[in-house]
Amino acid sequence: MGWMTDESGLEKCAANFVPLTPLSHLARAAEVFPNQTAVIHGDHRVTYAQYYDRCTRLAALLAEIGVTPGDVVATLIPNLPAQAEAHFGVPACGAVLNTINIRLDPDTVAYILDHGGAKVLLVDTEFLPLAEDACARMEGTCPAIIEVPDAPAGFPASGRHPQYEELLAEANPNFRWIMPDDEWESLALNYTSGTTGRPKGVVYHHRGAYLMTMGTVISWQMVLRPVFMQIVPLFHCNGWNHTWMMPLLGGTLVCCRDITAAAIYDAIADHGVTHFGGAPIVLNMLVNADAEDRRAFDHRVEVFTAGAPPAPATLSKIEKLGFNVTQVYGLTETFGHVTECLWQGAWDGLPEPDRAGVKARQGVAMPMMEEITVMDAEMAQTPRDGTAQGEIMIRGNAVMKGYLKNPEATAEAFAGGYFHSGDIAVQHPDGYIQIADRAKDIIISGGENISSVEVEGVLMGHGAVNLAAVVAQPDEKWGEVPCAFVELKPGAEASEEALIAFARARLAGFKTPKRVVFGELPKTSTGKIQKFELRKQVAAL
Amino acid sequence: MGWMTDESGLEKCAANFVPLTPLSHLARAAEVFPNQTAVIHGDHRVTYAQYYDRCTRLAALLAEIGVTPGDVVATLIPNLPAQAEAHFGVPACGAVLNTINIRLDPDTVAYILDHGGAKVLLVDTEFLPLAEDACARMEGTCPAIIEVPDAPAGFPASGRHPQYEELLAEANPNFRWIMPDDEWESLALNYTSGTTGRPKGVVYHHRGAYLMTMGTVISWQMVLRPVFMQIVPLFHCNGWNHTWMMPLLGGTLVCCRDITAAAIYDAIADHGVTHFGGAPIVLNMLVNADAEDRRAFDHRVEVFTAGAPPAPATLSKIEKLGFNVTQVYGLTETFGHVTECLWQGAWDGLPEPDRAGVKARQGVAMPMMEEITVMDAEMAQTPRDGTAQGEIMIRGNAVMKGYLKNPEATAEAFAGGYFHSGDIAVQHPDGYIQIADRAKDIIISGGENISSVEVEGVLMGHGAVNLAAVVAQPDEKWGEVPCAFVELKPGAEASEEALIAFARARLAGFKTPKRVVFGELPKTSTGKIQKFELRKQVAAL
Repeated sequence: MGWMTDESGLEKCAANFVPLTPLSHLARAAEVFPNQTAVIHGDHRVTYAQYYDRCTRLAALLAEIGVTPGDVVATLIPNLPAQAEAHFGVPACGAVLNTINIRLDPDTVAYILDHGGAKVLLVDTEFLPLAEDACARMEGTCPAIIEVPDAPAGFPASGRHPQYEELLAEANPNFRWIMPDDEWESLALNYTSGTTGRPKGVVYHHRGAYLMTMGTVISWQMVLRPVFMQIVPLFHCNGWNHTWMMPLLGGTLVCCRDITAAAIYDAIADHGVTHFGGAPIVLNMLVNADAEDRRAFDHRVEVFTAGAPPAPATLSKIEKLGFNVTQVYGLTETFGHVTECLWQGAWDGLPEPDRAGVKARQGVAMPMMEEITVMDAEMAQTPRDGTAQGEIMIRGNAVMKGYLKNPEATAEAFAGGYFHSGDIAVQHPDGYIQIADRAKDIIISGGENISSVEVEGVLMGHGAVNLAAVVAQPDEKWGEVPCAFVELKPGAEASEEALIAFARARLAGFKTPKRVVFGELPKTSTGKIQKFELRKQVAAL
Repeated sequence: MGWMTDESGLEKCAANFVPLTPLSHLARAAEVFPNQTAVIHGDHRVTYAQYYDRCTRLAALLAEIGVTPGDVVATLIPNLPAQAEAHFGVPACGAVLNTINIRLDPDTVAYILDHGGAKVLLVDTEFLPLAEDACARMEGTCPAIIEVPDAPAGFPASGRHPQYEELLAEANPNFRWIMPDDEWESLALNYTSGTTGRPKGVVYHHRGAYLMTMGTVISWQMVLRPVFMQIVPLFHCNGWNHTWMMPLLGGTLVCCRDITAAAIYDAIADHGVTHFGGAPIVLNMLVNADAEDRRAFDHRVEVFTAGAPPAPATLSKIEKLGFNVTQVYGLTETFGHVTECLWQGAWDGLPEPDRAGVKARQGVAMPMMEEITVMDAEMAQTPRDGTAQGEIMIRGNAVMKGYLKNPEATAEAFAGGYFHSGDIAVQHPDGYIQIADRAKDIIISGGENISSVEVEGVLMGHGAVNLAAVVAQPDEKWGEVPCAFVELKPGAEASEEALIAFARARLAGFKTPKRVVFGELPKTSTGKIQKFELRKQVAAL
């Protein structure tokens, strides 16, 4: 402990200690990059001076309608300018941003609104029916809805709610931002699909988001004024915190309602996009794009991908097209990516299959993290031999505060001073981590996490079903889709179509099993279903 | 304040909160860049694995000889590997690093050793006579000396003290680093020449050094694996914290005993140096180098310069040689640079004199700083009109804890919640700051700060001198040199040579006046010397 014998007068004060927050990045950008383009979406193109002004007005209008520090403000918006503005405007009035997944079913949205206690809900007009349905299903008080229309995209205002642009226009442009007094204050609330039927509310601190932005600049080898396309949904770990990072670099954020190969190629060719992040499905989309959707470009585009290792064939094809792909790994609980498959110079000469082999690793700790390693059940380091399996354990400043109103789950996740990722991995002799299996049976479909337990729960609710087990089935388009194995009750009958329709009525589309296989489930002597065996069966299907 | 209604279980814990410290960078580099070259000096060339091992051994040997957390360990070493290692090895045993200026006189070094209370002093053999002389003049207990010989450079071991390499070889390579429990713990102690005769001890915190490294990467547009030459002395603001930054990037640190044009050109050509920082005198050295000292290179070298605006003629010449120069500004109290003259795209087309004009500005806040502006005596923002003068005021995380054992000076420096720089500047309409005058009469000679008050004090100690005033005289080689104006006592006599010799015996060489002008000093009605008038006279000399 480096305290000197006499430290009188050396305490923190306003001059030498400022709580870390990504809000500082936008305040600085408004000063040092005022005329730089900050956000592009179709005809919408604003400078940092204008972006700052719009975020200030959003903070002002929220405060005006009664949002006070510590309150939750939720959003149901695709990756559009209003969603980016919420990332600064909501915390700038002291509130906590809760970006909700627009693909969820109304019941789950209602649960989130009740659990998080949102006072205001910003809704893109396309998702207004979902929002209104969810509000009708809530147990508690409904949040005030602010509608964000997008007429050029075919979503004009419904007329049923106050409108975003009109409120912004009337708001106080001189509102003084409410900066955190403590960098541990809550910045955002992100619900994870988790492993149980009900999502858990992951709470982010200002400090972690600030350090995520600083560390990501280094890992992604970004210099000033990148052009970044926001493909990862901002309702997933706040888009890996990249929108908070852009003002730090005077970068340009390119928005997009629907992620298509044409939209991405257009953004690269028209706006000069230099960086984006996305699930492997996005890489497949680019590689398999129709000729008329492709555009020529002559710079290298840096891509972060996560959720699953990019397939060697995809990697080989996409790198020839001018993209450099780096795999990263993280969870909602870690603000997004916390490891990177850091490329080593010694690998430059590797033949293609070996290149893909090393790129399939999840890698090493990013600069803002302290320690990411693999441990056995007793929390001892596993041998770094590329074969011994253990759980990925994470310690560092980009780890959540915990789960909202769930101290038990928080304590369990942090047992022994590490965040327990639930992901099973091996560690290579050079320290690189590679995921071997998922302890929590998460299925990743098109970049979305699906809890197999949740899908099983729904199927088991069908009168004819005795037992259900859901595992991932590899899928060329989505990466993985859910495949259900079902044991029917003695004498009961149900068709595959009927069970899929039953699930579809109760789950978001992406969570619905694409296939149902009937038969007795393999079990251990203690009656535990052997998913390992089911995965073998899926592989043989 | 973003505290939610229910934050139970959301407190900091070991999994989600790690004190910020530059020590983390080297620990990570040893894991992720183990085979990358970390440090080069002549035949000395070590990887990150070896650098980490050497720093660990240094920490171990210091702990072994009784250094405990919070103790001070001092150094008198040029920019050589041992000095870089001290930046990690000293704090890794919990101690505070006090790098002492090798150009100081023995009395001042003795004062610093007494005031800081160093327990151990690492000394390069070239500066052993200075260290031994200083120890003999101390009032308190002398520190234990560890000698760092450099035989290839003509400085073999004296045999009078334990030797660095021998102690390292015997030290415990498995010593467990003592990481800070609190990022506010003291990391380093840097004495500033200040404005009074006695230097003040500026105390750095771990948090500030960590954030300096993160912010500098962005300002300097560094990507992974830069090759950095340490020209700014590590005893000045710890070389602007660049040595702490290198492991974050897997960069290579090129050391140098004597800074010459030949040494810099060789390092660029032989090691591919991409970045260095230095006072304008270094730029002049490169521009005016003899043909045989120059080397060809075909990459662009990024240069940070500080201390004075680079002269337009120098800028014009050096940019044609392949260097891009950015002016930065800061003080010992701010860990080094905290503003940068951030280049705006709109300036790309400017004609040469206008380019030099904007590059002469000290600029805007770097990314890790919260607010740097110009205020009047009532601490109100001055008009941003490029003419209204005020004091540069600084607020952010790269500001010192305060002055050691001097709470009054600390409180004064931080009055009103800003660090008062003492530098007088104007602010342009775009927010860029430009220094207009120095409030504290500091003379900057070859990158070294000289307190005019200190030199005046020595001259006034001469029996024949009635009054002395010292101001900066522009100098082609050193930038500035001290020029003394002296009023002799009635009837007394003294020659210019005699006064210079008198000062030389009592001051470091660079502080000695190069010229003495005799005559009555111009004074205000209240008897205050009008230095303003003397500066006019110097300009006319």
